[in-house]
Amino acid sequence: MEETDVKNIIEDLEYLASARDGRMILNILVGNHPADIANLIHALPDEHAKYVFGLLDADTASDVIVELDDVTTELLVAGLRHERLSEIVDEMESDDATDLVAELPEDVAEKVLDSIDAEGSDEVKELLQHEEDTAGGIMALEYVAVHEGSSVDEAIHAIRAKAEDVEEVYNLYVIDKSGILVGFLPLKNLIVAAADLRIRDVMVREIISVPVSMDQEAVANIFRKYNLVSIPVTEESGRLVGRITVDDIVEVMEEEASEDIQKMAGIADEEEIRETSVLKISFGRLPWLLVSFFGELVAAIALGRFEASLQQIFMATFFIPLMMAMGGNSGIQAATIVVRGMALGELNPGQTMKRLMREVRVSLLNGSICGILLLGVISVFDEPRFGGVLALAMLIVIFNASFVGATIPLLLRRIGVDPAIAAGPLITTFNDIVGLSIYLGLVTMSLQFI
Amino acid sequence: MEETDVKNIIEDLEYLASARDGRMILNILVGNHPADIANLIHALPDEHAKYVFGLLDADTASDVIVELDDVTTELLVAGLRHERLSEIVDEMESDDATDLVAELPEDVAEKVLDSIDAEGSDEVKELLQHEEDTAGGIMALEYVAVHEGSSVDEAIHAIRAKAEDVEEVYNLYVIDKSGILVGFLPLKNLIVAAADLRIRDVMVREIISVPVSMDQEAVANIFRKYNLVSIPVTEESGRLVGRITVDDIVEVMEEEASEDIQKMAGIADEEEIRETSVLKISFGRLPWLLVSFFGELVAAIALGRFEASLQQIFMATFFIPLMMAMGGNSGIQAATIVVRGMALGELNPGQTMKRLMREVRVSLLNGSICGILLLGVISVFDEPRFGGVLALAMLIVIFNASFVGATIPLLLRRIGVDPAIAAGPLITTFNDIVGLSIYLGLVTMSLQFI
Repeated sequence: MEETDVKNIIEDLEYLASARDGRMILNILVGNHPADIANLIHALPDEHAKYVFGLLDADTASDVIVELDDVTTELLVAGLRHERLSEIVDEMESDDATDLVAELPEDVAEKVLDSIDAEGSDEVKELLQHEEDTAGGIMALEYVAVHEGSSVDEAIHAIRAKAEDVEEVYNLYVIDKSGILVGFLPLKNLIVAAADLRIRDVMVREIISVPVSMDQEAVANIFRKYNLVSIPVTEESGRLVGRITVDDIVEVMEEEASEDIQKMAGIADEEEIRETSVLKISFGRLPWLLVSFFGELVAAIALGRFEASLQQIFMATFFIPLMMAMGGNSGIQAATIVVRGMALGELNPGQTMKRLMREVRVSLLNGSICGILLLGVISVFDEPRFGGVLALAMLIVIFNASFVGATIPLLLRRIGVDPAIAAGPLITTFNDIVGLSIYLGLVTMSLQFI
Repeated sequence: MEETDVKNIIEDLEYLASARDGRMILNILVGNHPADIANLIHALPDEHAKYVFGLLDADTASDVIVELDDVTTELLVAGLRHERLSEIVDEMESDDATDLVAELPEDVAEKVLDSIDAEGSDEVKELLQHEEDTAGGIMALEYVAVHEGSSVDEAIHAIRAKAEDVEEVYNLYVIDKSGILVGFLPLKNLIVAAADLRIRDVMVREIISVPVSMDQEAVANIFRKYNLVSIPVTEESGRLVGRITVDDIVEVMEEEASEDIQKMAGIADEEEIRETSVLKISFGRLPWLLVSFFGELVAAIALGRFEASLQQIFMATFFIPLMMAMGGNSGIQAATIVVRGMALGELNPGQTMKRLMREVRVSLLNGSICGILLLGVISVFDEPRFGGVLALAMLIVIFNASFVGATIPLLLRRIGVDPAIAAGPLITTFNDIVGLSIYLGLVTMSLQFI
């Protein structure tokens, strides 16, 4: 849909929703992709969004809800009767159904699980047992698997039988008699193979699979590395238990990237871009503001200890922002590259020393360039000797900040803390305190020479 | 492959490469996934990497090169004779071949294009005409398309005929007699359909396609929105000209996320995480360091103008870092959410006012909390009246920084500049200058009351 169209349609929908003209609204929506309907509903004021969503049949409603963000989903689901909720959940694939049920208040969730069909209920209960951020937590139970002894023709029948249940089929999974995954067959190969061949003779034996307990970020890296569109999930025994498709992985990757970016910006709780509660947003941002707050109070105390020197060379005060900013920026640059490298799995433990040495050299180069520049600028207006002290301080501040910026994420990973939190206020605040101490320490030491 | 295995294999490879034992090396590598071979080669010292890569047959070499980062690819390709290069390019799918040829020095590229097979050469030349960052720049020419009048059985034959050329087939594209895309058919549906039906009667008519000129980030957002694994690319006339698969989109998404993250960290040129040249890294980071450098010199001048006030209340100096840090952090928080929202296509022009108002409210809340906290801390040690001035300054500084942080990305988008560059040193430096002026302006104004 074009953006201008969307605007017009939204206006129409608002008008019709105020007039409670459900029939016309459905006329407009019919035939649109669920993702587009989701977009329209999201753009409507809350009350109208609820009204329009209430008009949709259960099948469409289930497709639409899958496309909506958590904030809007919560809004739409909040007022629904559990019968309607059950109808919607019944239409969903197992992984989406599980996500929705997990978001519901406990009593509503129980009622829904009681009233959806038994098979679906068992599936959701099974999936709910896995941690949300693991392969088990994002896998679905919809896939097509055949026994290795089946013929190509039987496999085609198996797909036909499951065609309704399993929306997307890219690969056929092949299992032995105890359910152990032994191979797979891309649909293309199935189409190309002769009908009377055995699956075991045409299947691909080099299977890439993941265990149920694997972290979703690691699963995403495997998708990326091997260019996959789906991956089978197995228990430790090798038994096939589920399947993850690339659309869920795309979501994981966006989620992880957003999470990293937000952590680097000093946002503690993941902030939904569509979050509307000012309180929620504020409380996600306050913790790191407070870390910074108290850290900079320490910096104030540090400055206080250099009061005598500052009184003597008052000009030194003017360069406090410069030293802080240059240290802050170099630290964030170094930290960001290290954090991103680890997130993409491109920075393995064996390569950290190399990486660190590279950061040391880069910081010495950039520190020298900025230092010399500063010396030049100061020499024009003032004492070159004061400029020399500032230049040396700048070099050390940039070197220290880069080293700290590159090291802290590596240390955090070693102790099992997400390194992304380092590449933000934490490193900057630490570097401010250390950097200002280095700067004013140098100024104090050189007082006798200036 | 397990991480410990990889370490052992690398040691073996290094030993064998020193001994020039190509046969044993191939024994180790055979049967491994190209992505794993690429990983091993990447971990070897440059000379050994070249030797091992030289042992691979053209087919494997082409699969391996597709998995390697640009830095390593450049290293491996640099010394190759153009005959060997042509063999490798011949084995690649059109989009990968184009990417590789585009990286070669012009004279080598010409030689390669002359010696690969004519069809491949034409394809690469055609693809080279599209901008790198557009749908045309990432699409491949390998896809299976059938005429709408074909039977299901004919379609299956078409797939069989192309099975060798087109590695992954997820959907069959359906065109009319002038080549216009009129529908598609997932392979699952093809398998399920009766052999004598016409394609036009079983195909899906609601096609989601993109024009060749669309920006790759927009293409990625369409993949994400509609949960796609591949998308057909059309000319303006609607004629089908190529196909983009999700593995390329996954790369685009990682690339765009890395680019955004790096821009926010003040890294000007995209920095390869595996980049080894200290000069290249330094030059990517220097520009924003220099922006910050000169910006903070302006801040130094601003401070200079308040020299008299600072001399009078020397304590005000100690809180310069606090004011800078709190403004800096709030500005980055607000900017990051806005930039990320725009990148994911979740912040449409219509929603910007709402977003801005939300940031205003959040900043007033967080500014008040931090201000009151500061008033409390100061009152314990010093004059409450001085604390009051500081608290008011903090509130205004945080409000200003958040407002600037949220507004600048929106303005940059309007004038067509990538907003990600705003969420870094640019906003921070700007906020430092303005924030310090606000802070010291307030202190000066209140001198008579304290």
